[in-house]
Amino acid sequence: MTATIHQLGATRAPSLDAMVQLVSADLNQVNAVILDRMQSEIPLIPELAGHLIAGGGKRMRPMLTLASARLLDYGGARHFKLAAAVEFIHTATLLHDDVVDGSGLRRGKRTANIIWGNPASVLVGDFLFARSFELMVEDGSLKVLRILSHVSAVMAEGEVDQLTAQRRIETSEDHYLKIITAKTAALFAAACQVAAVVAERDEAVEEALDAYGRNLGIAFQLIDDAIDYASDGATMGKDAGDDFRDGKVTLPVILAYARGDEEERRFWREAIEGRRVSDEDLAHAVRLLRAHNAIDDTLTRARHYGQRAIDALGPFPNGKAKAALVEAVEFAIARAY
Amino acid sequence: MTATIHQLGATRAPSLDAMVQLVSADLNQVNAVILDRMQSEIPLIPELAGHLIAGGGKRMRPMLTLASARLLDYGGARHFKLAAAVEFIHTATLLHDDVVDGSGLRRGKRTANIIWGNPASVLVGDFLFARSFELMVEDGSLKVLRILSHVSAVMAEGEVDQLTAQRRIETSEDHYLKIITAKTAALFAAACQVAAVVAERDEAVEEALDAYGRNLGIAFQLIDDAIDYASDGATMGKDAGDDFRDGKVTLPVILAYARGDEEERRFWREAIEGRRVSDEDLAHAVRLLRAHNAIDDTLTRARHYGQRAIDALGPFPNGKAKAALVEAVEFAIARAY
Repeated sequence: MTATIHQLGATRAPSLDAMVQLVSADLNQVNAVILDRMQSEIPLIPELAGHLIAGGGKRMRPMLTLASARLLDYGGARHFKLAAAVEFIHTATLLHDDVVDGSGLRRGKRTANIIWGNPASVLVGDFLFARSFELMVEDGSLKVLRILSHVSAVMAEGEVDQLTAQRRIETSEDHYLKIITAKTAALFAAACQVAAVVAERDEAVEEALDAYGRNLGIAFQLIDDAIDYASDGATMGKDAGDDFRDGKVTLPVILAYARGDEEERRFWREAIEGRRVSDEDLAHAVRLLRAHNAIDDTLTRARHYGQRAIDALGPFPNGKAKAALVEAVEFAIARAY
Repeated sequence: MTATIHQLGATRAPSLDAMVQLVSADLNQVNAVILDRMQSEIPLIPELAGHLIAGGGKRMRPMLTLASARLLDYGGARHFKLAAAVEFIHTATLLHDDVVDGSGLRRGKRTANIIWGNPASVLVGDFLFARSFELMVEDGSLKVLRILSHVSAVMAEGEVDQLTAQRRIETSEDHYLKIITAKTAALFAAACQVAAVVAERDEAVEEALDAYGRNLGIAFQLIDDAIDYASDGATMGKDAGDDFRDGKVTLPVILAYARGDEEERRFWREAIEGRRVSDEDLAHAVRLLRAHNAIDDTLTRARHYGQRAIDALGPFPNGKAKAALVEAVEFAIARAY
């Protein structure tokens, strides 16, 4: 196989349609596991979990497991449970994130912590996390357990790292990349790698899928961070400017701060420290970001990681699965345009 | 072996000394694992975790694993990691519980959520939970993983169940027992059972240790619930009357409510719904509890479960380990006297 045969920048609008079509039958199996295993005789658990799980998520991570398995021509059924386990880890993280950030809106819906309160969100998150490990134990692969327990620890570390960096304008691009690799990209990577484990493929295949998922995850998060300054609640399903108001130092801010003059830096410092939270302040922030090309350059960085994700697929045979995985990268990036 | 050879009600004051002496060398090994594995390059993680882990905990659950292993003459080293994993699960639960309850004091110290905030407590709890699974995966026993992932889900279910029951005076004794079995006793049971797994003993031994731990855990929680109405912050290391102010329906309240007249029931209803939170209200509650023997009878119930825990040890040979496990039960109960 030639290495780089796909280039970003297709003419038609990329979508997840090819991926959805590729895995739709498999995804039904995963959804059945999810629905079955989020049950509990304590009614609040399926009620709260269902709000988020049934609530318009793209099932991006389980689809990555399923599409990666297709790429490897895996014909078994083990990955259904493991894709559900990955989605449970993701859902648990979302529940806890919304508590940590005090978020009120996700995917255009009120968040669970707003409806049921922080305590319920914390505890149901814990339940889903424990359930995900029960699913892995049923599968019985210690290697999968090692990958997913490690990624869970890494994600929590990334979240704590971000919490510590919050409200500190002096966060470097390297540090920021480390945070998003841990809190977002590591689970994308694990979701893909797990397919190689169940398909019993060699280390090189595991590494290639890990690299695909990791780079896709970084691109995905960079795009999210750019979108937070480029859209409103109606179009993106979460409150625009959330990161700004939470004092989150994301790449657009890091670039604008690095490129700004003394007065601008003072503005950013005050903003990130939480002393500039009005709509006017947000509008001023967006003006500064644009003046320094900070949003565009964040998107350029995202395209860099997107291209690396696509190139990581180089060794795999062409076909529907590979095309779908490539288009998933293009879609992740196109969301910003 | 004869079954019941120990009876509660020794003349000298029972303590954990025998247990501590029995396992002190082993506990050093466990503490080394705990200290090593709570590390992270994100400084807030060991700082926050260390506050709780180093902060005067009795290491009750790891000691149970170690003492159970001694009871079975287990000569290996696998249980050090697993006892640390159990303690991590417990610590993660404490961190999340304090967020859920909004607690300000634990073991006589300010809680982590007060010092570092709820977000940090939630995320470091997640980290410790993930770390506990990494430790289990290193051990490599799927059976242990099954037991401890299941108990983690059961604990979260119990916590959600309690959250739902909170502020509802119509909680039955059965329902209450189910809650404390899930949220407290299940981990005591698992801590003991794990020793039987690493010692490769048969199902009957696992069941006996499970029964010991479960009944001890129930007794332990019942005593805690009685103490909450029977002491002050200085003697018990947490705020007295916390359960009352949080609207927690514990056994003392269930008994007093069941035995009270219409006026008293109205008081309890208002109290549990959060409309009676003054010190005077608490004093009145304690008077009602005493008038109906509700605290004494809670202690009697605790002694019942304590005796069952001791009887579950019947099949095991006499010796230092068994004596220490018996005295741990006596100690758990004597805390209330």
